[in-house]
Amino acid sequence: MSAGKLNEQAKGVFIIAATPFTDEGALDLNSVDSLTDFYLGCGVTGFTLLGIMGEAPKLTAEESLSVVDRVVQRSQGRQIIVGVSHAGLENVRRLSHEVMIAGASGVMVAPPPGLKGDEGVYNYFAQVFKELGPDIPVVYQDYPQSTGVYLAPSVFERLVDDFKQLVMLKHEDWPGLAKLTRVREGEKKPGRRRVSILVGNGGLYLPQELRRGADGAMTGFAWPEMLVEVCDLAAKGKMEEAEDLFDIYLPLVRHEQQLGIGLALRKEVLFRRGAIKSPKQRAPGSSLTATDRAELDNLIARLERRLAVAGRGAKVAAE
Amino acid sequence: MSAGKLNEQAKGVFIIAATPFTDEGALDLNSVDSLTDFYLGCGVTGFTLLGIMGEAPKLTAEESLSVVDRVVQRSQGRQIIVGVSHAGLENVRRLSHEVMIAGASGVMVAPPPGLKGDEGVYNYFAQVFKELGPDIPVVYQDYPQSTGVYLAPSVFERLVDDFKQLVMLKHEDWPGLAKLTRVREGEKKPGRRRVSILVGNGGLYLPQELRRGADGAMTGFAWPEMLVEVCDLAAKGKMEEAEDLFDIYLPLVRHEQQLGIGLALRKEVLFRRGAIKSPKQRAPGSSLTATDRAELDNLIARLERRLAVAGRGAKVAAE
Amino acid sequence: MSAGKLNEQAKGVFIIAATPFTDEGALDLNSVDSLTDFYLGCGVTGFTLLGIMGEAPKLTAEESLSVVDRVVQRSQGRQIIVGVSHAGLENVRRLSHEVMIAGASGVMVAPPPGLKGDEGVYNYFAQVFKELGPDIPVVYQDYPQSTGVYLAPSVFERLVDDFKQLVMLKHEDWPGLAKLTRVREGEKKPGRRRVSILVGNGGLYLPQELRRGADGAMTGFAWPEMLVEVCDLAAKGKMEEAEDLFDIYLPLVRHEQQLGIGLALRKEVLFRRGAIKSPKQRAPGSSLTATDRAELDNLIARLERRLAVAGRGAKVAAE
Amino acid sequence: MSAGKLNEQAKGVFIIAATPFTDEGALDLNSVDSLTDFYLGCGVTGFTLLGIMGEAPKLTAEESLSVVDRVVQRSQGRQIIVGVSHAGLENVRRLSHEVMIAGASGVMVAPPPGLKGDEGVYNYFAQVFKELGPDIPVVYQDYPQSTGVYLAPSVFERLVDDFKQLVMLKHEDWPGLAKLTRVREGEKKPGRRRVSILVGNGGLYLPQELRRGADGAMTGFAWPEMLVEVCDLAAKGKMEEAEDLFDIYLPLVRHEQQLGIGLALRKEVLFRRGAIKSPKQRAPGSSLTATDRAELDNLIARLERRLAVAGRGAKVAAE
Repeated sequence: MSAGKLNEQAKGVFIIAATPFTDEGALDLNSVDSLTDFYLGCGVTGFTLLGIMGEAPKLTAEESLSVVDRVVQRSQGRQIIVGVSHAGLENVRRLSHEVMIAGASGVMVAPPPGLKGDEGVYNYFAQVFKELGPDIPVVYQDYPQSTGVYLAPSVFERLVDDFKQLVMLKHEDWPGLAKLTRVREGEKKPGRRRVSILVGNGGLYLPQELRRGADGAMTGFAWPEMLVEVCDLAAKGKMEEAEDLFDIYLPLVRHEQQLGIGLALRKEVLFRRGAIKSPKQRAPGSSLTATDRAELDNLIARLERRLAVAGRGAKVAAE
Repeated sequence: MSAGKLNEQAKGVFIIAATPFTDEGALDLNSVDSLTDFYLGCGVTGFTLLGIMGEAPKLTAEESLSVVDRVVQRSQGRQIIVGVSHAGLENVRRLSHEVMIAGASGVMVAPPPGLKGDEGVYNYFAQVFKELGPDIPVVYQDYPQSTGVYLAPSVFERLVDDFKQLVMLKHEDWPGLAKLTRVREGEKKPGRRRVSILVGNGGLYLPQELRRGADGAMTGFAWPEMLVEVCDLAAKGKMEEAEDLFDIYLPLVRHEQQLGIGLALRKEVLFRRGAIKSPKQRAPGSSLTATDRAELDNLIARLERRLAVAGRGAKVAAE
Repeated sequence: MSAGKLNEQAKGVFIIAATPFTDEGALDLNSVDSLTDFYLGCGVTGFTLLGIMGEAPKLTAEESLSVVDRVVQRSQGRQIIVGVSHAGLENVRRLSHEVMIAGASGVMVAPPPGLKGDEGVYNYFAQVFKELGPDIPVVYQDYPQSTGVYLAPSVFERLVDDFKQLVMLKHEDWPGLAKLTRVREGEKKPGRRRVSILVGNGGLYLPQELRRGADGAMTGFAWPEMLVEVCDLAAKGKMEEAEDLFDIYLPLVRHEQQLGIGLALRKEVLFRRGAIKSPKQRAPGSSLTATDRAELDNLIARLERRLAVAGRGAKVAAE
Repeated sequence: MSAGKLNEQAKGVFIIAATPFTDEGALDLNSVDSLTDFYLGCGVTGFTLLGIMGEAPKLTAEESLSVVDRVVQRSQGRQIIVGVSHAGLENVRRLSHEVMIAGASGVMVAPPPGLKGDEGVYNYFAQVFKELGPDIPVVYQDYPQSTGVYLAPSVFERLVDDFKQLVMLKHEDWPGLAKLTRVREGEKKPGRRRVSILVGNGGLYLPQELRRGADGAMTGFAWPEMLVEVCDLAAKGKMEEAEDLFDIYLPLVRHEQQLGIGLALRKEVLFRRGAIKSPKQRAPGSSLTATDRAELDNLIARLERRLAVAGRGAKVAAE
């Protein structure tokens, strides 16, 4: 079952999949399956694997590929984007080839720390595109909070103009609303392609970003069904309704947006919802105290009450 | 009218006051008055002036003191904390003496960038306390996102044990919930003082922080009445009610939490609410586009609807 | 005695003057005089005051101006450049006016931390130039190790083309040799001005930079007579001889190039050479241990032996 | 031929080996052999492979192991330290086991970016030591310019006291002379082990560090014979003679100490000296311009003249 190559029309929710481990720290491929099923049940459009955040860097090369294989097999034809950022371009190419052959629809590349100036960014990605060739769709991962590399809209536009394989911007600068608007305005120039823009930062500004022209979300919030419905409503022009729904979940969106502990919270929710067998992280990782758990309990209870008030079934937690 | 010295019992909302300028960029002391009145009308417990964020660094030394003087005169006996961080300790001392003489209740000091290790932090503050002497109450401003300096709980405890004039922690690490809990637990050690903890980061985690033992907020959110009421409800043990109110405002709390543009949004709201005569920032500053304004309009309209649903008067915007 | 305005022909050594304090930490204006005399005796072309490194940030506004005044009075018509970087552009303008009126020949501005992308850098300086007007000569201080802001050669060229008052590049990127060559090559474009380039980083790469087209040095090495003679020899085309002399001092150039302790070493040497009455720094500052002093003693003894071998008088230390 | 395990008596020069590639970018194992021979000919005590700098991150996992294997086979019983830093502790353990089984004498671990405070550093390494067990000798790589993590002497001492397998400090903080002295003084405490300290930063402060108690160097300077002889002379107490020799090479030591372009210079020299077949770096890498080459030519010519004056054979370049 082929998902086809990623292109500029991509939209909806590409969920950033957590990496499940057993309590002993082994990669848990059965939980990869159940988690994939869970995400499918939430209605995601696609998957993003091996991003720069999360626990992908803690996998071996073999484990990484086995995760990609497993999700490809299980994902019912959804498109899969795989992060292939690496210190060496030969490895970027090699990884890209491996995952495309394994069935990925495209790859995602973040700039390495230390690039200098607009030219430095352009030249690096020009090298990447030359190395990968025209047939592998590429997502630019713009996440300066982690990379330290700023992407100027004019640089992104040069890359879009010069390289057809650049089909998506993973928008994760913060603050970044102005940049998003600026990129969309720049696309009105005759001859320039409109690319897909999916947004990150846990979705913290998702309604604003959708109003400004984003096509969806690429993030890992533990209630993906909200992301999916918000994007659906927005696509239908029901933006106020979308934002009403989003605001119900906002306290938890914000709660997950805590570097480090946020991942522990996310895995705990996925565990409680039955999506994975253990919330375990590989060392060094974060874990939850009794205080953290009680706090999360309360935030979830509040979410369920708000959902009930809104006339929505309490499908929040499986327990 | 003396506000008395700041001590460990401080609580409630110490509002971080914006600095108003005329459209031409001159310091607008009349707006300092009206803004002070506005904050008083919101029920703030105290004021924090000349913090490391905002526009205080754009003032001259004389302008800074004139702002302090003006707020002291106008603030009806509320306590005032003044930021006195400076590259040289002689200047920290001089500024501290000037503002205490002018009527401040205490000073706030952030560690300078470049301190190394736990000893580096302890030694710097030990120098500060020696320089200032035992009679000037001091707030430790823990804001590593700006300073790059991590404050270990054990270091804070050593400082609390060794220097009686350290009476408050401005808690602004992110994520920082675990640190807050850790400091409160450490205070159970016999003989250790319990200090005041006020929280920042725009109040983004205020309910969680209050539940974990914070005494209030020190931030500049443009609807201070919400911060005040949330802290009041929490103090009365009505924590769920407090969080309900907070969540109504959360979309805007989050919206202001955008570095740079956040200040433009905050000043725009204060301007719309009649608190200041111009939303102007001194250069280099951020400003709002038509898109930014429409977005803000919509967020405010949504807030007013939620407030109405909650049976609360729409006292949000003065227009 | 007017030194005239700084222009593109500036060359030689603009010494970054240390700020002398008494043992008690007071600004020592008598030592400002003796230090100025010392630098004049070393043959410096000009002075740079109140840079972003060193202890200028520890001065009050009044002290800063008094240092500028004092050096202007004492400097026998040498040109003086004054650092005026500040968080607010109004203050940059005000400081610039004050020091130009006091007799400075030009001002030096570094980009503030946080500027984003090539446009961010260009726009900031365009604002600065607009604020200062066409009559105040400006030096661009390119010191990304401290500011975190990269200056692309193409941005510098745009600024040179658009603003006649930009007359000098303080070159202190590291590594920066390629940038220096790139800027000099770019100046061959018809119609573009050739600006002055003075180099920093303690002079660690001075011979290489002179060969690549630098016009001199702007740094604070404690044996300025070496910098002066090296630049003189280079100007006469005796580059090998210049580098021979430089290499004799290189162990000490390198020794001073230690952030923090380097300033303590520099002040200690200036003190030993009779240029200032005390090596004291204002707190928080670095100081030398017995081990540090013995190490410095040995490095100086070695320098004197090398100078003697080279047939040069041991004018190194006054003792 | 077993080299035995690394212990606290390690000294001399552990050369950080360059990674040779063909002009086409393939790993060049024949050049790994010739480079190993070259280093042996220079008299190095041992080898350090796969450090955090250089091009090791551009290798695949298989390539990395093949380099280790190849050097182990060729290195005539010299001890080999292998960098095993990785985002996940499972991988640190796995890599450590692999390289120890392959014949390494010990492993080197740098702290991951983002560790907070003294406790964060201690706890991370405590986890590492627990993971690796007591039988794998470990080097603490203290390189905050790259990792952003400061190592306090007191933390290092706690680790030395608590974990017998910690046998060496790779000292590369800058400035770091005071820390080195502080660690040596701390070792005088009864019961504390004296560990080996080898220094990095290209050897820029090697004579000062040897005088302060370092046991040798761990760096990749392209004339390793100088490092070897300087360490030998220092071990024999001929410190002035050692420093005389060092100073002859200092202009080139300094020249290599340019981040990025420094590696291109180093590989160019190794290429010229016949140690590797190509100076090629894997992309993205730095390369030399004609100006860079002429500059290097001149610096080498000057070195040869100084060596000749010192009565030393011009064994500098093979050409």
